[in-house]
Amino acid sequence: VLDRLADTGDDVIVYGTDGDDLAARVGRELAERGLTLAVAESCTAGLVAERLTRNPGASTFLLAGIVAYADDAKVRFLEVDPGTLARHGAVSGETVREMLSGARRAIGADAALAVTGVAGPGGGSVTKPVGTVWLAASVGEREAVRRVRFPGDRSDVRSRSAQAVLALLWRLLHERGDER
Amino acid sequence: VLDRLADTGDDVIVYGTDGDDLAARVGRELAERGLTLAVAESCTAGLVAERLTRNPGASTFLLAGIVAYADDAKVRFLEVDPGTLARHGAVSGETVREMLSGARRAIGADAALAVTGVAGPGGGSVTKPVGTVWLAASVGEREAVRRVRFPGDRSDVRSRSAQAVLALLWRLLHERGDER
Repeated sequence: VLDRLADTGDDVIVYGTDGDDLAARVGRELAERGLTLAVAESCTAGLVAERLTRNPGASTFLLAGIVAYADDAKVRFLEVDPGTLARHGAVSGETVREMLSGARRAIGADAALAVTGVAGPGGGSVTKPVGTVWLAASVGEREAVRRVRFPGDRSDVRSRSAQAVLALLWRLLHERGDER
Repeated sequence: VLDRLADTGDDVIVYGTDGDDLAARVGRELAERGLTLAVAESCTAGLVAERLTRNPGASTFLLAGIVAYADDAKVRFLEVDPGTLARHGAVSGETVREMLSGARRAIGADAALAVTGVAGPGGGSVTKPVGTVWLAASVGEREAVRRVRFPGDRSDVRSRSAQAVLALLWRLLHERGDER
């Protein structure tokens, strides 16, 4: 699966066409290890949770997904600080980190995923063009946060974001050594 | 869209193949009327929210979606009474009503959708066979709750559930006269 991913440093471009396979593998891995998962989504709006639950047995690991589309929902369900949203915006490293930790804390999961980005076609800016997506994953004490710029239209950005955040979790699950 | 739906009374069978169209229509209708929406999903696990957000502009009406896969998530995020889950189970009219009102209350939306069912292949029983799904929708003071039995496999049950709950909301948006 991960052979197709190209990591080019801080600004990572991640591709993936075998989305279902990766979701299924992540799910099996979590189930085998007895780990539970919480998902916090903004621009992908349910796509990550939907992919993780296509196969039977998803209730073994998936506890909850939060589609926090409005800022109020990020505050209400994911305990994101309104000051963070005001200072950094919904599409930022600070917000995605708070979404990640809030999702995990709120539901008491062993692992979490979070995604927030500009899927387009509107909503882009010079500093945050369409395709800008922040991804985050955590397992136990490990955490990874990445900024990505995806090419393509709204549908491409959403599906690539879902694939990339699953890949981020997959890496954390298989990483050995220092935490990032 | 609704020509394809067959309503046979209390136990409704609903089909739909043009899911994206119905989601887009529901979204446009909500946006035009200035109504906000909250979505509470169990067996569809994000599919309804994902479909409603495929087109740009979804942030005009969609505030949040809750994928309440575990019972704890239904209690934590949707304020479902644990006693209701214990007495009636997660797949029940009582639970879907509480998911609906909880989602709407928690996020302060004008309208809401809720889905809970047995997507299969496991989890079925004599009284709640695979394909049994409870759907609920509300707009303002209007509310509709339906039990449905869908044929097909896991993927069929999930996609038909998503389509059917969107159809339920569509009807409420266009109904005139007495509330149900």
